[in-house]
Amino acid sequence: MEYTLEEKEGFMREALKEAEKSLAKDEIPIGCVIVKDGQIIGRGHNAREELNQAVMHAEIMAITEANAHVGNWRLLDCTLFVTIEPCVMCSGAIGLARIPKVIYGAANAKFGAAGSLYDILRDERLNHRVEVETGILEEACADVMRSFFKARREQKKLD
Amino acid sequence: MEYTLEEKEGFMREALKEAEKSLAKDEIPIGCVIVKDGQIIGRGHNAREELNQAVMHAEIMAITEANAHVGNWRLLDCTLFVTIEPCVMCSGAIGLARIPKVIYGAANAKFGAAGSLYDILRDERLNHRVEVETGILEEACADVMRSFFKARREQKKLD
Repeated sequence: MEYTLEEKEGFMREALKEAEKSLAKDEIPIGCVIVKDGQIIGRGHNAREELNQAVMHAEIMAITEANAHVGNWRLLDCTLFVTIEPCVMCSGAIGLARIPKVIYGAANAKFGAAGSLYDILRDERLNHRVEVETGILEEACADVMRSFFKARREQKKLD
Repeated sequence: MEYTLEEKEGFMREALKEAEKSLAKDEIPIGCVIVKDGQIIGRGHNAREELNQAVMHAEIMAITEANAHVGNWRLLDCTLFVTIEPCVMCSGAIGLARIPKVIYGAANAKFGAAGSLYDILRDERLNHRVEVETGILEEACADVMRSFFKARREQKKLD
């Protein structure tokens, strides 16, 4: 299903709300929603520190919830919105879940695997290709991350 | 911690027991154990179909269990034994969990990301490098997969 720019921004704002949940718990603020037929069927936020789980990135939490919602490991006809470019693990998971489209807000030059360090989602050798769109609410998505790391650096100076 | 060849084969046999659990449920038979100080602290087997969860590969299940066991997302001083070379998602997860060493039985030429398609675990650009060893009970690990896919092809002919 195709969404208008207004709809995409609306879903990215929901992903940003998820990122705020991470922020409130002093976690790296990344949020994600998975949309099917215009409805959000999975939400996720980075909760690695809170849950003490290395794999608990926003996308993995959202995919797990969406899989449970549809009762199937395949997330056909879904669009995944995430505030920051997915890492290697999450890009792999998106392909494994057969998600056809990913829209991310801002790139991650250091760890991104959807065009930056790697381009896992569009790798012709893998058995599922994912369409990638970027730049939806890019500044807002990048700002949440920048503020978090700035605050962390300042806190370190005080420690 | 370093293990002798005999110890490594013992842990890989435990990973093979996990793969047998997948096989019994008609899942792609891959198993994994995570070892710390000579003790298994996490076990996993591929359970994608049973649980309807795209991310439920053997390594993810084992990492989740090991994280819960130590109460920390970092799996320092652990060795991960897996019957088949990890995919992109699982290789990313292994790095994120800061696991220092991976031993896999047989390579996966089509989807392996620890030396075959990609070499995620030894990528100098990522913030954690993982030592990789291969070939422990290689034939047994490969055989479980081969028998599974052979039986599946024969079943398809009958369908």
